[in-house]
Amino acid sequence: MNSTAAILIIGDEILSGRTQDTNTNYIARQLSALGIDLKEVRVVGDVEAEIVAALNALRARYDFVFTTGGIGPTHDDITADSIAKAFGVGIGYHPEAYAMLEARYGKEKFNEARKRMARVPDGGALVKNAVSAAPGFRLGNVFVMAGVPSVMRAMMEEIAVALPRGTPVTSVTVSARAPEGDIAAGLEAVQKNFPSVAIGSYPFHDAQGFGAQLVARGRDANEVEQTVRAIEAMLAQLGAASTRV
Amino acid sequence: MNSTAAILIIGDEILSGRTQDTNTNYIARQLSALGIDLKEVRVVGDVEAEIVAALNALRARYDFVFTTGGIGPTHDDITADSIAKAFGVGIGYHPEAYAMLEARYGKEKFNEARKRMARVPDGGALVKNAVSAAPGFRLGNVFVMAGVPSVMRAMMEEIAVALPRGTPVTSVTVSARAPEGDIAAGLEAVQKNFPSVAIGSYPFHDAQGFGAQLVARGRDANEVEQTVRAIEAMLAQLGAASTRV
Repeated sequence: MNSTAAILIIGDEILSGRTQDTNTNYIARQLSALGIDLKEVRVVGDVEAEIVAALNALRARYDFVFTTGGIGPTHDDITADSIAKAFGVGIGYHPEAYAMLEARYGKEKFNEARKRMARVPDGGALVKNAVSAAPGFRLGNVFVMAGVPSVMRAMMEEIAVALPRGTPVTSVTVSARAPEGDIAAGLEAVQKNFPSVAIGSYPFHDAQGFGAQLVARGRDANEVEQTVRAIEAMLAQLGAASTRV
Repeated sequence: MNSTAAILIIGDEILSGRTQDTNTNYIARQLSALGIDLKEVRVVGDVEAEIVAALNALRARYDFVFTTGGIGPTHDDITADSIAKAFGVGIGYHPEAYAMLEARYGKEKFNEARKRMARVPDGGALVKNAVSAAPGFRLGNVFVMAGVPSVMRAMMEEIAVALPRGTPVTSVTVSARAPEGDIAAGLEAVQKNFPSVAIGSYPFHDAQGFGAQLVARGRDANEVEQTVRAIEAMLAQLGAASTRV
């Protein structure tokens, strides 16, 4: 059985539309490659009660939860405190984080605001990264990462090393030159013959007309290949051009 | 009081990382402009029980829920049925949707798969759009839209006309040429003086060094302006250059 995961994106800037979230997509692709099944994503604002409620729902249900956002030095960064509250544990300066940040900034510049970045819930283990001196942390099955994409990615790389690997999904995409409505019945028949492979259909429209990207996903590469061949045969029978992409 | 809203994104392709979701950001910006407060976003896969559970949680809690994805003609499009199940109502062909789609495709091409797109939960009202003959629908406080961005946007434009307007948030961004850690204490002091304005700080790093986008958001434009002036004065005192962006 593959492990399961959820992502919790924390930030008013996503909900206001000011910022286009790209962290979800990055983490999703990393998890796919590792063979960990991402089951759910939630986005909540910078509100402690909302973070606590969402985190507790997700960490109870999935093997791993990845959060991004809210671990900087400013007053609106409330993630570490919210995580401590969700777990019902205390929070204080983590000696190693404190030392790392002090070394980075020097004693004079290591002010109260920057010291906030050394605050880690009791029992938390640091997630270091190559980009920023401010670490993320892991507490239980929850990984707490920065919201800035370059820092989040560096943290995710660090985390990925220690995650259990499952069977990665094999995904093959066939681009079909036919409207979805023409191929839907044939596609459903293929799906019924290969129940362990998930077939998704994503329509598109371009200068040449309507088409659909047909995506076959499964853990058994051989079964996925058989499914794709059945899709290709079905398309050929309907006179629809197709290419693997 | 402004209305509240949530978004439910339905689709395996988002969770697998195959597709970067952009619908959330578009809807978020539309809602901001209307003065409707987006409070939460969830992404779930093409799994009926997950869609039902998420939808029922969100529609009970917020004034409006906007869903995208899963209303096409193929077997993996299960949103309409899932919505009917969540509301505990039946589902069948909506006469007007059926007529629209039949007119679009012609009798021969209007096959069983395409007829699926005319299926609407009992009591649902159509959401037409300028791009596709296949409509979305509204049931209670839930708006069900396509996942294809161009179609979703056309549906959202149609929906926006009928949504209640609140007080749009005034948002002013000041770009500060200083590391977050240097300005955090001053920023927190400003925040304490203007509690009804939310100040967010979003760090960046470019060729000129570290900086932060400081965003002041509130319903009272005058208070936002006062807040921004206080931020600018604080930055000037610290010798940090700033520009409104």
